[in-house]
Amino acid sequence: MKFRNFKLVGYVIFGRGAFNQLDEILAPQRKGDAPMIFFVDQFFKDKPAFTGRIPLQGKDKVVFIDVTHEPKTKYVDQLRDELKAEFGQVSGIIGIGGGSTMDMAKAVSLMMTNPGSSADYQGWDLVKQPGVYKAGIPTLSGTGAEVSRTTVLTGPTRKLGMNSDYTPFDQIVLDPELIKDAPINQRFYTAMDCYIHCVESLEGTYLNAFSRSYGEKALELCQEIFLKKPHWDDDADEKLMMASYAGGMSIAYSQVGVAHAVSYGLSYVLGTHHGVGNCIVFDKLEEFYPQGVKEFKEMVQRHNVTIPQNITKGMSAADVDKMIDVSLSLAPLWENALGKDWQQQMTRERLRDLYAKL
Amino acid sequence: MKFRNFKLVGYVIFGRGAFNQLDEILAPQRKGDAPMIFFVDQFFKDKPAFTGRIPLQGKDKVVFIDVTHEPKTKYVDQLRDELKAEFGQVSGIIGIGGGSTMDMAKAVSLMMTNPGSSADYQGWDLVKQPGVYKAGIPTLSGTGAEVSRTTVLTGPTRKLGMNSDYTPFDQIVLDPELIKDAPINQRFYTAMDCYIHCVESLEGTYLNAFSRSYGEKALELCQEIFLKKPHWDDDADEKLMMASYAGGMSIAYSQVGVAHAVSYGLSYVLGTHHGVGNCIVFDKLEEFYPQGVKEFKEMVQRHNVTIPQNITKGMSAADVDKMIDVSLSLAPLWENALGKDWQQQMTRERLRDLYAKL
Repeated sequence: MKFRNFKLVGYVIFGRGAFNQLDEILAPQRKGDAPMIFFVDQFFKDKPAFTGRIPLQGKDKVVFIDVTHEPKTKYVDQLRDELKAEFGQVSGIIGIGGGSTMDMAKAVSLMMTNPGSSADYQGWDLVKQPGVYKAGIPTLSGTGAEVSRTTVLTGPTRKLGMNSDYTPFDQIVLDPELIKDAPINQRFYTAMDCYIHCVESLEGTYLNAFSRSYGEKALELCQEIFLKKPHWDDDADEKLMMASYAGGMSIAYSQVGVAHAVSYGLSYVLGTHHGVGNCIVFDKLEEFYPQGVKEFKEMVQRHNVTIPQNITKGMSAADVDKMIDVSLSLAPLWENALGKDWQQQMTRERLRDLYAKL
Repeated sequence: MKFRNFKLVGYVIFGRGAFNQLDEILAPQRKGDAPMIFFVDQFFKDKPAFTGRIPLQGKDKVVFIDVTHEPKTKYVDQLRDELKAEFGQVSGIIGIGGGSTMDMAKAVSLMMTNPGSSADYQGWDLVKQPGVYKAGIPTLSGTGAEVSRTTVLTGPTRKLGMNSDYTPFDQIVLDPELIKDAPINQRFYTAMDCYIHCVESLEGTYLNAFSRSYGEKALELCQEIFLKKPHWDDDADEKLMMASYAGGMSIAYSQVGVAHAVSYGLSYVLGTHHGVGNCIVFDKLEEFYPQGVKEFKEMVQRHNVTIPQNITKGMSAADVDKMIDVSLSLAPLWENALGKDWQQQMTRERLRDLYAKL
């Protein structure tokens, strides 16, 4: 395929309070008495005012997802095994949370019907069977996981998603009320996943009118929210939710760049979460994205956010080499950012110096 | 449902030359030797350089669609009957053309599996069975038919679409090369369907952040193409194609207004095509949309387009009354434009005066 044939999510519902329609939305998807399984970010464990609104029926179950670390193939396999042992089959998996929780829901849905370990499917178009019904309900916006055709997993040998046409959600519920109570730093890091992605893709060499129009819209929404609004309001939640959606859609025909390539190394070796990792890296990328980094620093300041510093201090030379290996293996990202001769430009030494600054 | 759960098209491919991938895209959708039927706008009847590129296999058939009039339920039923008589079953219907051709493809796809006449399904959620596989390939951009959940049909008693979750295409192929050779007036009228829709929805009372962000993007793209570019170029084709797509998506949570309400009357009684009908009406709507109409007139002038005048001259009083009836029956459009008290504002006499100006 010269151009990717992009699989969209099946249904989207957007609206303040749309979460209240979940019961009605799930009803036609229930298969006999097989339960719906709700994967809920552990953040909500002690928030009964929210969890009490989940429309449980019959054998339905809530599973709180541990997002201390980014999703691992081992965790996916374990949850799949537990659900199979307890229920045999399920009607569907509903992911309620940020990118990690939504990715876990996508991955476990696929692994309910595909044999073996999720690590076997890290790559492109390796998944051969549709998963069980799956829905995504973001409570943090920015990752675009609600519309992507991947689920980023850390496996025994690599950090790589299960990219396939079976991966996108059958349904997404975009209810701006659900992101209202996100902690400020976390909300910012996650939103910046969208902002940084847009800067990287709009300034990259891979792009067409489809991805450009989504990317521009997402960027403009982020700028409005984080640079123009005098304070956070309901409208900011709505716009951030749309920025995440549009940013995710823009991925279809675009590619990320330096921040993502470098931040993948951090995640792999230090376990740094994707959102904050991107911020840590982007903060030091003036030479690559001067305008974007300037704007980013202004956002950080206006919103009084803390970007961690000196996180690579004291790392062993072997670990730094591992980060460099992981990062340099992401050829399409580097090529998008720097062009075909990226290897001449981004040597191991230059990358080592960059990691030392983080 | 308080908020509509919006069904998206299955797959989208966007790219200059993406049409060349059609054979590969259709291959997995072929069911034994049941043919793919290509509904092609009659505009291409004498253009073998284009029709020769349609990837025909086995019993596949090209049917040129007569778009002299907007799609009629009788025409849908007739094509369905012919295809059933000739082939029994088909693998899919591929619509290649403007809004009328794409709507014909959607409607016939649905009628291959749903009994009776398409007139029985004019309304909301009356279609009970998925149709056969269907794909939409625009060669004119602006209507948004490629992403809509309706197909506008003129039936024995009304002009109304088959609105349903089964209506959206399984696949759309957005290849900007295909709209390159559209006649200038036609291209303009169709593009204005998008522009006018966006003005109406962005200034209306029904709108949320989802539809606003799509509507704003579509409007901005139209403004760039028609007001800023010194001449038409490939980039204009790409952006117009995206404007149409974004405009169509914005329909999810928005509503059109005065121009559409009035133009529906023209279409019903005079058979005026939707695109040009909207232009004829919008041209006289300064009192409702002052900024939009000013910009519209500037576009008309810059692109040296002809907007038909005096088309209602000499119409019988009965016909004018019929137009008024059709238009006033579209309560949601009027309410979106004028608010809850629209009936006090838009009396039959005021509407009669408006029709007299067209």
